[in-house]
Amino acid sequence: MAEKISFSTQIFSRVRLATESDVSHLHKLMYQMAKYHNYTKVFNATKASITTNLFKSDNPCPPFYSVTAFILEVSSDSFPQNTLKNPIFDPILKIVNLDSPILDSDLELFRTSNNISSILSEVDNKPLSSDNNVLVAGYVLFYPCYSGYFEKPGFFIENMFVRECYRKCGFGKMLFSAVASQAIKLGFTKVDWLTVGWNENAIDFYLGMGAYIMQDVKRFRLCGDGLDAFATNDQDGGDMV
Amino acid sequence: MAEKISFSTQIFSRVRLATESDVSHLHKLMYQMAKYHNYTKVFNATKASITTNLFKSDNPCPPFYSVTAFILEVSSDSFPQNTLKNPIFDPILKIVNLDSPILDSDLELFRTSNNISSILSEVDNKPLSSDNNVLVAGYVLFYPCYSGYFEKPGFFIENMFVRECYRKCGFGKMLFSAVASQAIKLGFTKVDWLTVGWNENAIDFYLGMGAYIMQDVKRFRLCGDGLDAFATNDQDGGDMV
Repeated sequence: MAEKISFSTQIFSRVRLATESDVSHLHKLMYQMAKYHNYTKVFNATKASITTNLFKSDNPCPPFYSVTAFILEVSSDSFPQNTLKNPIFDPILKIVNLDSPILDSDLELFRTSNNISSILSEVDNKPLSSDNNVLVAGYVLFYPCYSGYFEKPGFFIENMFVRECYRKCGFGKMLFSAVASQAIKLGFTKVDWLTVGWNENAIDFYLGMGAYIMQDVKRFRLCGDGLDAFATNDQDGGDMV
Repeated sequence: MAEKISFSTQIFSRVRLATESDVSHLHKLMYQMAKYHNYTKVFNATKASITTNLFKSDNPCPPFYSVTAFILEVSSDSFPQNTLKNPIFDPILKIVNLDSPILDSDLELFRTSNNISSILSEVDNKPLSSDNNVLVAGYVLFYPCYSGYFEKPGFFIENMFVRECYRKCGFGKMLFSAVASQAIKLGFTKVDWLTVGWNENAIDFYLGMGAYIMQDVKRFRLCGDGLDAFATNDQDGGDMV
Protein backbone atom coordinates (compact mmCIF):
# COMPACT_ATOMS: atom_id res chain seq x y z
CA MET A 1 0.00 0.00 0.00
CA ALA A 2 1.38 3.34 -1.01
CA GLU A 3 2.11 5.89 1.62
CA LYS A 4 -0.68 8.39 2.16
CA ILE A 5 0.16 12.02 2.10
CA SER A 6 -1.10 13.45 5.30
CA PHE A 7 -1.51 17.14 5.69
CA SER A 8 -1.30 17.82 9.37
CA THR A 9 -1.08 21.57 9.78
CA GLN A 10 -0.77 23.18 6.38
CA ILE A 11 -1.15 22.62 2.64
CA PHE A 12 0.68 24.36 -0.14
CA SER A 13 -1.79 24.92 -2.93
CA ARG A 14 -1.73 26.22 -6.46
CA VAL A 15 -4.30 27.11 -9.09
CA ARG A 16 -2.96 27.03 -12.63
CA LEU A 17 -4.22 26.78 -16.19
CA ALA A 18 -4.94 23.16 -17.13
CA THR A 19 -2.85 21.59 -19.89
CA GLU A 20 -3.36 18.53 -22.02
CA SER A 21 -1.38 16.49 -19.53
CA ASP A 22 -4.19 17.07 -17.01
CA VAL A 23 -6.83 15.33 -19.10
CA SER A 24 -6.72 12.07 -17.20
CA HIS A 25 -7.19 13.86 -13.87
CA LEU A 26 -9.86 16.14 -15.29
CA HIS A 27 -11.79 13.10 -16.48
CA LYS A 28 -11.71 11.56 -12.99
CA LEU A 29 -12.71 14.85 -11.37
CA MET A 30 -15.56 15.36 -13.83
CA TYR A 31 -16.83 11.86 -13.10
CA GLN A 32 -16.66 12.48 -9.36
CA MET A 33 -18.61 15.68 -9.80
CA ALA A 34 -21.23 13.90 -11.92
CA LYS A 35 -21.49 11.28 -9.18
CA TYR A 36 -21.98 13.96 -6.55
CA HIS A 37 -24.81 15.39 -8.65
CA ASN A 38 -26.30 11.96 -9.44
CA TYR A 39 -25.56 12.47 -13.12
CA THR A 40 -23.47 9.40 -13.87
CA LYS A 41 -26.24 7.89 -16.04
CA VAL A 42 -25.82 10.66 -18.59
CA PHE A 43 -22.09 11.22 -18.11
CA ASN A 44 -20.37 10.42 -21.39
CA ALA A 45 -17.23 12.56 -21.29
CA THR A 46 -14.11 10.67 -22.29
CA LYS A 47 -10.45 11.55 -22.12
CA ALA A 48 -10.55 11.98 -25.89
CA SER A 49 -13.54 14.31 -25.77
CA ILE A 50 -11.98 16.43 -23.03
CA THR A 51 -8.80 16.71 -25.07
CA THR A 52 -10.80 17.74 -28.13
CA ASN A 53 -12.97 20.27 -26.34
CA LEU A 54 -10.31 21.86 -24.20
CA PHE A 55 -7.02 21.45 -25.98
CA LYS A 56 -7.16 20.16 -29.53
CA SER A 57 -10.45 21.04 -31.04
CA ASP A 58 -11.02 22.90 -34.26
CA ASN A 59 -11.89 25.69 -31.89
CA PRO A 60 -9.45 28.44 -32.76
CA CYS A 61 -10.02 30.32 -29.51
CA PRO A 62 -7.30 30.69 -26.88
CA PRO A 63 -7.95 30.23 -23.13
CA PHE A 64 -10.51 32.64 -21.62
CA TYR A 65 -12.11 33.27 -25.04
CA SER A 66 -13.68 29.83 -24.98
CA VAL A 67 -13.98 26.99 -22.49
CA THR A 68 -11.09 27.05 -20.02
CA ALA A 69 -10.09 24.89 -17.06
CA PHE A 70 -8.06 25.72 -13.98
CA ILE A 71 -6.53 22.91 -11.95
CA LEU A 72 -6.16 23.03 -8.17
CA GLU A 73 -3.05 21.26 -6.88
CA VAL A 74 -1.96 20.60 -3.33
CA SER A 75 1.39 19.58 -1.90
CA SER A 76 3.10 19.17 1.42
CA ASP A 77 6.06 21.00 -0.07
CA SER A 78 6.12 24.54 -1.35
CA PHE A 79 5.61 25.22 -5.04
CA PRO A 80 8.32 27.19 -6.80
CA GLN A 81 7.27 30.80 -6.26
CA ASN A 82 9.04 32.68 -8.97
CA THR A 83 9.60 30.26 -11.77
CA LEU A 84 6.12 29.66 -13.07
CA LYS A 85 5.23 32.97 -14.61
CA ASN A 86 2.94 32.16 -17.47
CA PRO A 87 2.16 34.52 -20.36
CA ILE A 88 -1.51 33.52 -20.24
CA PHE A 89 -2.18 33.00 -16.54
CA ASP A 90 0.19 33.29 -13.63
CA PRO A 91 -0.52 30.46 -11.18
CA ILE A 92 -1.98 31.50 -7.84
CA LEU A 93 -0.21 30.13 -4.76
CA LYS A 94 -1.65 29.89 -1.26
CA ILE A 95 -0.69 28.31 2.01
CA VAL A 96 -3.73 26.93 3.76
CA ASN A 97 -3.62 26.31 7.49
CA LEU A 98 -5.63 23.33 8.63
CA ASP A 99 -7.91 22.93 11.64
CA SER A 100 -7.58 19.16 11.42
CA PRO A 101 -5.35 16.71 9.49
CA ILE A 102 -6.28 15.48 6.00
CA LEU A 103 -5.68 11.97 4.69
CA ASP A 104 -6.07 11.55 0.94
CA SER A 105 -7.02 7.93 0.29
CA ASP A 106 -7.02 8.49 -3.50
CA LEU A 107 -3.60 10.03 -3.74
CA GLU A 108 -2.30 7.53 -6.29
CA LEU A 109 -5.15 8.40 -8.62
CA PHE A 110 -4.50 12.10 -8.43
CA ARG A 111 -0.74 12.42 -8.33
CA THR A 112 0.43 15.05 -10.79
CA SER A 113 1.78 13.32 -13.87
CA ASN A 114 5.45 13.12 -14.75
CA ASN A 115 4.77 15.42 -17.67
CA ILE A 116 3.91 18.21 -15.35
CA SER A 117 6.82 17.41 -13.07
CA SER A 118 9.20 17.56 -15.97
CA ILE A 119 7.71 20.86 -17.10
CA LEU A 120 8.23 22.21 -13.62
CA SER A 121 11.78 20.92 -13.59
CA GLU A 122 12.54 22.54 -16.91
CA VAL A 123 11.21 25.86 -15.81
CA ASP A 124 12.98 25.57 -12.52
CA ASN A 125 16.07 24.38 -14.32
CA LYS A 126 16.74 21.76 -11.65
CA PRO A 127 15.08 18.57 -10.49
CA LEU A 128 12.19 19.13 -8.16
CA SER A 129 12.49 17.47 -4.82
CA SER A 130 8.72 17.22 -4.57
CA ASP A 131 8.05 15.52 -7.91
CA ASN A 132 5.70 13.01 -6.42
CA ASN A 133 4.15 15.12 -3.76
CA VAL A 134 1.85 17.18 -5.95
CA LEU A 135 -1.78 16.05 -6.05
CA VAL A 136 -4.69 17.30 -8.09
CA ALA A 137 -7.47 18.32 -5.70
CA GLY A 138 -10.05 20.07 -7.84
CA TYR A 139 -10.90 22.05 -10.95
CA VAL A 140 -13.08 24.78 -12.33
CA LEU A 141 -14.45 24.91 -15.88
CA PHE A 142 -15.69 28.22 -17.28
CA TYR A 143 -16.18 30.24 -20.44
CA PRO A 144 -17.13 33.77 -21.45
CA CYS A 145 -20.78 34.76 -21.51
CA TYR A 146 -22.41 37.87 -22.91
CA SER A 147 -25.88 39.34 -22.58
CA GLY A 148 -27.20 42.03 -24.86
CA TYR A 149 -28.25 43.99 -21.76
CA PHE A 150 -24.73 44.77 -20.63
CA GLU A 151 -21.73 46.63 -21.85
CA LYS A 152 -19.23 43.99 -20.83
CA PRO A 153 -19.06 40.21 -21.01
CA GLY A 154 -18.66 37.98 -18.00
CA PHE A 155 -17.53 34.48 -17.18
CA PHE A 156 -19.96 31.63 -16.71
CA ILE A 157 -18.72 28.92 -14.37
CA GLU A 158 -20.02 25.59 -15.59
CA ASN A 159 -18.30 23.18 -13.15
CA MET A 160 -16.44 23.74 -9.91
CA PHE A 161 -15.33 20.77 -7.86
CA VAL A 162 -13.03 20.12 -4.92
CA ARG A 163 -12.35 16.51 -3.94
CA GLU A 164 -14.14 15.53 -0.75
CA CYS A 165 -11.15 15.29 1.57
CA TYR A 166 -10.07 18.81 0.64
CA ARG A 167 -13.37 20.56 1.28
CA LYS A 168 -13.96 23.19 3.96
CA CYS A 169 -10.39 24.46 3.53
CA GLY A 170 -11.11 27.48 1.34
CA PHE A 171 -10.15 25.81 -1.92
CA GLY A 172 -13.53 26.44 -3.53
CA LYS A 173 -13.08 30.08 -2.74
CA MET A 174 -9.55 29.94 -4.14
CA LEU A 175 -10.75 28.45 -7.45
CA PHE A 176 -13.58 30.95 -7.64
CA SER A 177 -11.21 33.77 -6.84
CA ALA A 178 -8.92 32.76 -9.69
CA VAL A 179 -11.85 33.07 -12.11
CA ALA A 180 -12.96 36.39 -10.57
CA SER A 181 -9.44 37.81 -10.84
CA GLN A 182 -9.17 36.82 -14.45
CA ALA A 183 -12.58 38.36 -15.17
CA ILE A 184 -11.41 41.67 -13.74
CA LYS A 185 -8.11 41.45 -15.60
CA LEU A 186 -10.03 41.16 -18.87
CA GLY A 187 -12.42 44.00 -17.98
CA PHE A 188 -15.34 41.65 -17.47
CA THR A 189 -17.91 42.81 -14.93
CA LYS A 190 -19.62 39.67 -13.71
CA VAL A 191 -19.26 36.00 -12.93
CA ASP A 192 -22.43 33.90 -13.24
CA TRP A 193 -23.20 30.28 -12.39
CA LEU A 194 -26.07 27.95 -11.58
CA THR A 195 -26.51 25.86 -8.45
CA VAL A 196 -29.02 23.06 -8.04
CA GLY A 197 -31.75 24.00 -5.59
CA TRP A 198 -31.12 21.07 -3.24
CA ASN A 199 -27.47 21.92 -2.68
CA GLU A 200 -27.90 24.04 0.44
CA ASN A 201 -24.19 23.87 1.30
CA ALA A 202 -23.27 25.37 -2.03
CA ILE A 203 -26.00 28.01 -1.81
CA ASP A 204 -24.83 29.08 1.65
CA PHE A 205 -21.23 29.10 0.45
CA TYR A 206 -22.00 31.37 -2.49
CA LEU A 207 -24.22 33.73 -0.53
CA GLY A 208 -21.44 33.99 2.06
CA MET A 209 -19.07 35.03 -0.71
CA GLY A 210 -21.20 38.06 -1.54
CA ALA A 211 -22.95 36.58 -4.57
CA TYR A 212 -26.69 36.97 -5.02
CA ILE A 213 -29.44 34.81 -6.43
CA MET A 214 -31.03 36.34 -9.48
CA GLN A 215 -34.73 36.13 -10.27
CA ASP A 216 -36.44 32.76 -10.42
CA VAL A 217 -35.41 30.88 -13.56
CA LYS A 218 -36.19 27.63 -15.30
CA ARG A 219 -33.32 25.89 -17.02
CA PHE A 220 -34.36 24.47 -20.38
CA ARG A 221 -32.64 21.97 -22.63
CA LEU A 222 -33.33 20.56 -26.05
CA CYS A 223 -31.23 17.55 -27.01
CA GLY A 224 -31.34 14.14 -28.64
CA ASP A 225 -34.29 13.40 -30.91
CA GLY A 226 -35.95 16.68 -29.95
CA LEU A 227 -32.97 18.63 -31.23
CA ASP A 228 -32.63 16.51 -34.36
CA ALA A 229 -36.31 16.99 -35.17
CA PHE A 230 -35.90 20.71 -34.93
CA ALA A 231 -33.04 20.86 -37.33
CA THR A 232 -34.86 18.59 -39.78
CA ASN A 233 -37.94 20.75 -39.49
CA ASP A 234 -35.77 23.66 -40.48
CA GLN A 235 -34.32 22.01 -43.52
CA ASP A 236 -37.52 20.79 -45.11
CA GLY A 237 -37.96 24.03 -47.00
CA GLY A 238 -41.63 24.19 -46.14
CA ASP A 239 -43.48 27.20 -44.90
CA MET A 240 -43.49 27.82 -41.18
CA VAL A 241 -46.85 29.13 -40.09
CA MET B 1 -46.29 60.19 -41.49
CA ALA B 2 -44.43 57.42 -43.24
CA GLU B 3 -46.34 54.64 -44.88
CA LYS B 4 -46.77 51.58 -42.73
CA ILE B 5 -45.87 48.23 -44.13
CA SER B 6 -48.86 46.07 -43.70
CA PHE B 7 -48.58 42.37 -44.03
CA SER B 8 -52.00 41.12 -44.92
CA THR B 9 -51.66 37.47 -45.85
CA GLN B 10 -47.99 36.50 -45.86
CA ILE B 11 -44.52 37.59 -44.77
CA PHE B 12 -41.24 36.73 -46.40
CA SER B 13 -38.75 36.17 -43.64
CA ARG B 14 -35.06 35.50 -43.34
CA VAL B 15 -32.66 34.56 -40.54
CA ARG B 16 -29.06 35.49 -41.26
CA LEU B 17 -25.80 36.07 -39.42
CA ALA B 18 -25.68 39.60 -37.97
CA THR B 19 -23.03 41.95 -39.29
CA GLU B 20 -21.60 45.17 -37.94
CA SER B 21 -24.16 47.13 -39.94
CA ASP B 22 -26.87 45.60 -37.71
CA VAL B 23 -25.51 47.12 -34.51
CA SER B 24 -27.98 50.00 -34.39
CA HIS B 25 -30.93 47.62 -34.77
CA LEU B 26 -29.45 45.13 -32.32
CA HIS B 27 -29.13 47.89 -29.76
CA LYS B 28 -32.80 48.81 -30.12
CA LEU B 29 -33.89 45.17 -29.97
CA MET B 30 -31.77 44.54 -26.88
CA TYR B 31 -33.30 47.55 -25.18
CA GLN B 32 -36.80 46.38 -26.06
CA MET B 33 -36.01 42.97 -24.64
CA ALA B 34 -34.63 44.55 -21.45
CA LYS B 35 -37.84 46.58 -21.19
CA TYR B 36 -39.96 43.45 -21.60
CA HIS B 37 -38.01 41.88 -18.74
CA ASN B 38 -38.08 45.04 -16.60
CA TYR B 39 -34.31 45.30 -16.80
CA THR B 40 -33.89 48.80 -18.19
CA LYS B 41 -32.42 50.07 -14.91
CA VAL B 42 -29.35 47.89 -15.35
CA PHE B 43 -29.24 47.99 -19.15
CA ASN B 44 -25.97 49.63 -20.16
CA ALA B 45 -25.25 48.15 -23.59
CA THR B 46 -24.24 50.75 -26.15
CA LYS B 47 -23.77 50.57 -29.89
CA ALA B 48 -20.03 50.77 -29.25
CA SER B 49 -20.09 47.91 -26.74
CA ILE B 50 -22.16 45.71 -29.05
CA THR B 51 -19.70 46.39 -31.85
CA THR B 52 -16.79 45.51 -29.59
CA ASN B 53 -18.33 42.36 -28.19
CA LEU B 54 -19.75 40.97 -31.39
CA PHE B 55 -17.67 42.29 -34.23
CA LYS B 56 -14.48 44.08 -33.29
CA SER B 57 -13.28 42.83 -29.98
CA ASP B 58 -9.85 41.48 -29.22
CA ASN B 59 -11.74 38.21 -29.23
CA PRO B 60 -10.04 36.17 -31.92
CA CYS B 61 -12.92 33.70 -32.21
CA PRO B 62 -15.05 33.44 -35.34
CA PRO B 63 -18.88 33.15 -35.24
CA PHE B 64 -20.21 30.07 -33.39
CA TYR B 65 -16.99 29.73 -31.39
CA SER B 66 -17.91 32.74 -29.30
CA VAL B 67 -20.91 35.01 -28.95
CA THR B 68 -22.92 35.11 -32.16
CA ALA B 69 -26.08 36.90 -33.26
CA PHE B 70 -28.65 35.98 -35.87
CA ILE B 71 -30.98 38.68 -37.23
CA LEU B 72 -34.59 38.00 -38.23
CA GLU B 73 -35.77 40.11 -41.16
CA VAL B 74 -39.21 40.37 -42.70
CA SER B 75 -40.35 41.78 -46.01
CA SER B 76 -43.43 41.97 -48.15
CA ASP B 77 -41.23 41.00 -51.09
CA SER B 78 -39.30 37.81 -51.50
CA PHE B 79 -35.64 37.67 -50.55
CA PRO B 80 -33.19 36.60 -53.22
CA GLN B 81 -33.14 32.82 -52.89
CA ASN B 82 -29.89 31.83 -54.50
CA THR B 83 -27.60 34.78 -54.16
CA LEU B 84 -26.89 34.86 -50.47
CA LYS B 85 -24.91 31.71 -49.90
CA ASN B 86 -22.58 32.49 -47.06
CA PRO B 87 -19.43 30.51 -46.23
CA ILE B 88 -20.24 30.75 -42.52
CA PHE B 89 -24.01 30.50 -42.40
CA ASP B 90 -26.50 30.22 -45.24
CA PRO B 91 -29.51 32.41 -44.48
CA ILE B 92 -32.75 30.57 -43.78
CA LEU B 93 -35.77 31.73 -45.74
CA LYS B 94 -39.41 31.11 -44.88
CA ILE B 95 -42.76 32.31 -46.09
CA VAL B 96 -45.13 32.77 -43.18
CA ASN B 97 -48.85 32.76 -43.81
CA LEU B 98 -50.79 35.07 -41.51
CA ASP B 99 -54.07 34.53 -39.73
CA SER B 100 -54.58 38.28 -39.39
CA PRO B 101 -52.84 41.38 -40.83
CA ILE B 102 -49.83 42.97 -39.14
CA LEU B 103 -49.15 46.69 -38.92
CA ASP B 104 -45.63 47.63 -37.86
CA SER B 105 -45.81 51.06 -36.24
CA ASP B 106 -42.01 51.14 -35.72
CA LEU B 107 -41.03 50.35 -39.25
CA GLU B 108 -38.89 53.45 -39.69
CA LEU B 109 -36.81 52.44 -36.70
CA PHE B 110 -36.21 48.94 -37.98
CA ARG B 111 -35.78 49.34 -41.70
CA THR B 112 -32.73 47.42 -42.86
CA SER B 113 -29.88 49.88 -43.31
CA ASN B 114 -28.56 50.99 -46.67
CA ASN B 115 -25.38 49.13 -45.90
CA ILE B 116 -27.17 45.85 -45.96
CA SER B 117 -29.14 46.84 -49.01
CA SER B 118 -25.95 47.65 -50.83
CA ILE B 119 -24.42 44.35 -49.75
CA LEU B 120 -27.47 42.59 -51.10
CA SER B 121 -27.23 44.55 -54.33
CA GLU B 122 -23.59 43.66 -54.74
CA VAL B 123 -24.23 40.00 -54.21
CA ASP B 124 -27.22 40.11 -56.46
CA ASN B 125 -25.25 42.20 -58.95
CA LYS B 126 -28.27 44.42 -59.60
CA PRO B 127 -30.25 46.96 -57.64
CA LEU B 128 -32.82 45.42 -55.34
CA SER B 129 -36.35 46.52 -55.95
CA SER B 130 -37.17 45.95 -52.29
CA ASP B 131 -34.37 48.00 -50.76
CA ASN B 132 -36.62 49.72 -48.32
CA ASN B 133 -39.03 46.95 -47.65
CA VAL B 134 -36.80 44.85 -45.39
CA LEU B 135 -37.41 45.25 -41.66
CA VAL B 136 -35.57 43.81 -38.70
CA ALA B 137 -38.06 41.89 -36.56
CA GLY B 138 -35.97 40.06 -34.00
CA TYR B 139 -32.68 38.49 -33.00
CA VAL B 140 -31.09 35.66 -31.11
CA LEU B 141 -27.80 35.85 -29.22
CA PHE B 142 -25.96 32.63 -28.35
CA TYR B 143 -22.56 31.12 -27.69
CA PRO B 144 -21.03 27.69 -27.19
CA CYS B 145 -21.26 26.05 -23.79
CA TYR B 146 -19.52 22.95 -22.47
CA SER B 147 -19.99 20.80 -19.41
CA GLY B 148 -17.43 18.33 -18.20
CA TYR B 149 -20.21 15.72 -18.01
CA PHE B 150 -20.71 15.45 -21.74
CA GLU B 151 -18.76 14.41 -24.77
CA LYS B 152 -19.94 17.29 -26.93
CA PRO B 153 -20.46 21.01 -26.45
CA GLY B 154 -23.78 22.75 -26.96
CA PHE B 155 -25.10 26.22 -27.61
CA PHE B 156 -26.42 28.43 -24.85
CA ILE B 157 -29.07 30.90 -25.99
CA GLU B 158 -28.67 34.07 -23.97
CA ASN B 159 -31.29 36.34 -25.63
CA MET B 160 -34.08 35.62 -28.06
CA PHE B 161 -36.51 38.36 -28.99
CA VAL B 162 -39.19 38.97 -31.59
CA ARG B 163 -40.75 42.43 -31.81
CA GLU B 164 -44.28 42.51 -30.42
CA CYS B 165 -46.19 42.93 -33.69
CA TYR B 166 -44.46 39.88 -35.16
CA ARG B 167 -45.18 37.46 -32.34
CA LYS B 168 -47.37 34.35 -32.65
CA CYS B 169 -46.24 33.87 -36.26
CA GLY B 170 -43.62 31.17 -35.73
CA PHE B 171 -40.64 33.52 -35.82
CA GLY B 172 -39.40 32.52 -32.37
CA LYS B 173 -39.40 28.94 -33.56
CA MET B 174 -37.61 30.00 -36.75
CA LEU B 175 -34.84 31.76 -34.78
CA PHE B 176 -34.55 28.83 -32.41
CA SER B 177 -34.48 26.41 -35.32
CA ALA B 178 -31.59 28.32 -36.91
CA VAL B 179 -29.56 27.83 -33.72
CA ALA B 180 -30.57 24.17 -33.44
CA SER B 181 -29.59 23.51 -37.07
CA GLN B 182 -26.22 25.12 -36.57
CA ALA B 183 -25.68 23.09 -33.39
CA ILE B 184 -26.27 19.88 -35.31
CA LYS B 185 -24.09 21.03 -38.18
CA LEU B 186 -21.20 21.46 -35.73
CA GLY B 187 -21.84 18.12 -34.03
CA PHE B 188 -23.16 19.76 -30.87
CA THR B 189 -25.74 17.72 -28.97
CA LYS B 190 -27.74 20.22 -26.98
CA VAL B 191 -29.15 23.71 -26.85
CA ASP B 192 -29.69 25.20 -23.38
CA TRP B 193 -31.29 28.40 -22.18
CA LEU B 194 -32.91 29.97 -19.14
CA THR B 195 -36.40 31.39 -18.86
CA VAL B 196 -37.67 33.54 -16.02
CA GLY B 197 -40.23 31.69 -13.94
CA TRP B 198 -43.00 34.28 -14.44
CA ASN B 199 -42.90 34.07 -18.23
CA GLU B 200 -45.58 31.41 -18.69
CA ASN B 201 -45.99 32.16 -22.39
CA ALA B 202 -42.32 31.43 -22.98
CA ILE B 203 -42.39 28.31 -20.82
CA ASP B 204 -45.40 26.93 -22.70
CA PHE B 205 -43.75 27.80 -26.00
CA TYR B 206 -40.56 25.93 -25.14
CA LEU B 207 -42.32 22.90 -23.70
CA GLY B 208 -44.42 22.77 -26.86
CA MET B 209 -41.21 22.67 -28.88
CA GLY B 210 -40.10 19.47 -27.18
CA ALA B 211 -37.67 21.07 -24.74
CA TYR B 212 -37.63 20.04 -21.09
CA ILE B 213 -37.04 21.82 -17.83
CA MET B 214 -33.98 20.55 -16.03
CA GLN B 215 -33.75 20.18 -12.28
CA ASP B 216 -34.48 23.14 -10.03
CA VAL B 217 -31.63 25.66 -10.20
CA LYS B 218 -30.66 28.94 -8.62
CA ARG B 219 -28.95 31.47 -10.85
CA PHE B 220 -26.09 33.20 -9.07
CA ARG B 221 -24.17 36.32 -9.96
CA LEU B 222 -21.19 38.12 -8.50
CA CYS B 223 -20.57 41.59 -9.90
CA GLY B 224 -19.66 45.15 -8.92
CA ASP B 225 -17.98 45.64 -5.57
CA GLY B 226 -18.50 41.98 -4.66
CA LEU B 227 -16.48 40.89 -7.68
CA ASP B 228 -13.81 43.54 -7.13
CA ALA B 229 -13.42 42.51 -3.50
CA PHE B 230 -12.87 38.94 -4.57
CA ALA B 231 -10.14 39.78 -6.99
CA THR B 232 -8.44 42.05 -4.47
CA ASN B 233 -8.65 39.34 -1.86
CA ASP B 234 -6.86 37.10 -4.28
CA GLN B 235 -4.07 39.53 -4.99
CA ASP B 236 -3.11 40.40 -1.44
CA GLY B 237 -0.71 37.51 -1.23
CA GLY B 238 -2.01 36.51 2.18
CA ASP B 239 -2.85 33.00 3.26
CA MET B 240 -6.34 31.84 2.61
CA VAL B 241 -7.53 29.74 5.51
